[in-house]
Amino acid sequence: MSDLNDLKAFHGDAWALLERGVADRRSPARHPTFATVSPQGRPEARTVVLRAARRADAEIEVHSDTRAAKIAALEQTPHAAIHIWHPGHRLQIRLMTRVHVAGGASVKAKWDRVPDGSRTAYGAEPTPGTRIAEAGAYTHAPKLENFAVLTCAIEEMELLHLGDPHRRARFLREED
Amino acid sequence: MSDLNDLKAFHGDAWALLERGVADRRSPARHPTFATVSPQGRPEARTVVLRAARRADAEIEVHSDTRAAKIAALEQTPHAAIHIWHPGHRLQIRLMTRVHVAGGASVKAKWDRVPDGSRTAYGAEPTPGTRIAEAGAYTHAPKLENFAVLTCAIEEMELLHLGDPHRRARFLREED
Repeated sequence: MSDLNDLKAFHGDAWALLERGVADRRSPARHPTFATVSPQGRPEARTVVLRAARRADAEIEVHSDTRAAKIAALEQTPHAAIHIWHPGHRLQIRLMTRVHVAGGASVKAKWDRVPDGSRTAYGAEPTPGTRIAEAGAYTHAPKLENFAVLTCAIEEMELLHLGDPHRRARFLREED
Repeated sequence: MSDLNDLKAFHGDAWALLERGVADRRSPARHPTFATVSPQGRPEARTVVLRAARRADAEIEVHSDTRAAKIAALEQTPHAAIHIWHPGHRLQIRLMTRVHVAGGASVKAKWDRVPDGSRTAYGAEPTPGTRIAEAGAYTHAPKLENFAVLTCAIEEMELLHLGDPHRRARFLREED
């Protein structure tokens, strides 16, 4: 990584890791933790797959089944804390985001580019998380109507490098 | 891992990974993501170090500086979602917990066992997260009064194995 006292370079390193997460299935940035507030006001967190990282717009993209608990959470509190821990670099990336959920015709072009193998994630019956009597008691029928694109506008990015000494830097959208 | 159709064995595997996270600095379970709800009702997430995993009590333990944002969050919403992604096993462990924060004389015995190198984390001035004029503009003076022990009682554990096929299992405290 760059000289961590150079804030601009530190910020650039973090974006390079995010972009690598999109391109490389083995990168630690491939699977961020996505934290939301449930309709009951409780914290929730789960693994997601990083689908896009757009530095120019300061946003990242995640896909979801429209019936997942995170969609219900985002309807009430449209914010997600996105967290990546990169063990190799001992770097923590924290993104405080505002999330816009899109579905239906507006995401048809993206749906058409989802590989068949990944599409099965959007057709499970019953809904993922439902109790079933035994393992395997569900079917798949991929449907566009179950596909949601979550655009996460980054309001704040915090980087914490757990080297010696620790380095912490915070970047706010309003300050660019 | 065990036969994932055997729920008891699946549950045992997850606890074995948690226990390994306490003992082994290189285990992915060493650094869970700890998600809370901020006093403003926003999701927050950060890396923590897993300090204990007690299967018999269904609880885990994390340490914190009393001045950290997560302590303010837990005062208002005493719940944390704890999340571990184990890339090697393709296993996601999600713990929904109720958190009890203890400090002062009641945690003196644990403080006495914190190695000197780790104690420096509890004495930074100004408080971690404060804006400083330049990197390194802070000092350390470890203090027991800054040391908090967070006991996280697991109310629900969800395991998701992203193998082929996916396996998901949920365990509730009230159902043992």
